[in-house]
Amino acid sequence: MSDLPAALSLREVGPRDGLQNEDPVPTEAKVALINALSGTGVGRIEAVSFVHPKAIPQMADADAVWSGIDRNAAVRYSALVPNLRGAQRALDAGFTEIEAVVSASDTHNRKNVNRSTAESLDDIAALLALAHERGATCQVIVSTAFGCPYEGEVPPERVHWVVDRALADGADGISYGDTTGMATPSRVTQLVGETRMRHPELALNLHFHNTRGTGLANVLAALQLGVSDFDASVGGLGGCPYAPGATGNIATEELVHMVEDMGVATGIDLDAMIAAAAEAEQLVGRKLPSQVLRAGPRTRRTPLDDPVTGY
Amino acid sequence: MSDLPAALSLREVGPRDGLQNEDPVPTEAKVALINALSGTGVGRIEAVSFVHPKAIPQMADADAVWSGIDRNAAVRYSALVPNLRGAQRALDAGFTEIEAVVSASDTHNRKNVNRSTAESLDDIAALLALAHERGATCQVIVSTAFGCPYEGEVPPERVHWVVDRALADGADGISYGDTTGMATPSRVTQLVGETRMRHPELALNLHFHNTRGTGLANVLAALQLGVSDFDASVGGLGGCPYAPGATGNIATEELVHMVEDMGVATGIDLDAMIAAAAEAEQLVGRKLPSQVLRAGPRTRRTPLDDPVTGY
Repeated sequence: MSDLPAALSLREVGPRDGLQNEDPVPTEAKVALINALSGTGVGRIEAVSFVHPKAIPQMADADAVWSGIDRNAAVRYSALVPNLRGAQRALDAGFTEIEAVVSASDTHNRKNVNRSTAESLDDIAALLALAHERGATCQVIVSTAFGCPYEGEVPPERVHWVVDRALADGADGISYGDTTGMATPSRVTQLVGETRMRHPELALNLHFHNTRGTGLANVLAALQLGVSDFDASVGGLGGCPYAPGATGNIATEELVHMVEDMGVATGIDLDAMIAAAAEAEQLVGRKLPSQVLRAGPRTRRTPLDDPVTGY
Repeated sequence: MSDLPAALSLREVGPRDGLQNEDPVPTEAKVALINALSGTGVGRIEAVSFVHPKAIPQMADADAVWSGIDRNAAVRYSALVPNLRGAQRALDAGFTEIEAVVSASDTHNRKNVNRSTAESLDDIAALLALAHERGATCQVIVSTAFGCPYEGEVPPERVHWVVDRALADGADGISYGDTTGMATPSRVTQLVGETRMRHPELALNLHFHNTRGTGLANVLAALQLGVSDFDASVGGLGGCPYAPGATGNIATEELVHMVEDMGVATGIDLDAMIAAAAEAEQLVGRKLPSQVLRAGPRTRRTPLDDPVTGY
């Protein structure tokens, strides 16, 4: 596996995608979690989203969280926005890096923001112009890129159509969201491979959920194509509303643990990230799905007088 | 990913490796689980182990389980044995396919069977001769092949030494056990690649635990090297004594779900395996780690009036 990227740029999305899918937690707790994450060596944190508080009450305190954290100069903080109004709020709050989101699947997009994919793309065109006017960058996240829980298969051609439109309107990067964990490695290889052919210079981020256990296998398939930009969530924070007990994003410490052992640098202090995962677990008051949080890294030794570990 | 194997041969190890690491369950429940698994299309089931009941009380009823099940002519049933005495019991019970186990790590082997790896290999030589004399086949499982929880790294040379010895003594196949989930994809590529170079015709099985979340990524790395024989445990049955809450084997239905979507046939009816996982969950009375058991396959549709599923 000598052709893997030498280093990854990871974006920690636990405070946003994670907490958005948990029971609401106090503002101070969010601030403490982001501060802990800021000290792990992770280079990017998606800190909040500016969505309507009626839609996602968990994010109603976005301004307070953002003004409350200790900003680490070595970390790039960003905010997710679902529409032009959210972008205005994020830019007014001082964010210089935002993520706009649109679903490749029309049905999912309508469920999320009550308009078609094409209508959201029109809104995003205005949003991109505004962000650039204000000196900010904006990545466009394509949700349901590997499948839609309502519609089923999402043809790669549909994803390419969204990407082409977003890039034509000035998107600074693209992220593919595997919203409900419908990706498998061969689908990653196909969609990412086709995207690379169409846009060789594109800054492409991948955002996997581990809803069906394939998260790290999907990362491996993407690494083999040279992708070096991934989202992950501390502790695997974030549930999945439609499937009680199912997990959300891939866990940051699991991703770091695997790729660092493969010689791929992340810049993240694994012990610090595991400690942050333990803090996140305390915060939400339920057992998080991260295996590395439970078992520790592979370098952890079992005391000799412990019971034997089977075969 | 066009060079993946067209089909896999999977061995279901839930009744043995799974239940061995759970609180004891009644004999009739084990029989019911094996009967359910026998109807899923899986081609091989490791049904029991013949270990000393003082060492593993969960397996004290191996004879009763074996005589109680409805044997499906399309399924190959096997038994795991830790030593010559266990092999005699398995052969006397009528098994024609057994697995002998030895740890590459001396410390792990001593903890398991109170003797060195070399001493176990001597015992296995006699065991192989006995099995062949009685018309049975015997695979040798090399535990801790990707690392030892007591010693740490296990050099591939040590694994090769065990394999060379077992093959010289007549082993019909080899399995590499990732006993405590210390494998990562690059380690799989290295060890399996070297093994293939040394023994191109070897029947090689891989037995991954998902203790640190890398199980399916390791499977992907092995598939890419042409490995087509894997162990898995229904529901991810089987804990890990040294790390409370950590998972055991990779879940059969997660493996089937991923590889079938990639065009790799398993012969297994995914719905039937998910139903068996639900039965296993009832049996042990705790939530099993399988994500596909929770979320269902990627083909499952969410009703349109369900709450939205995020990004």
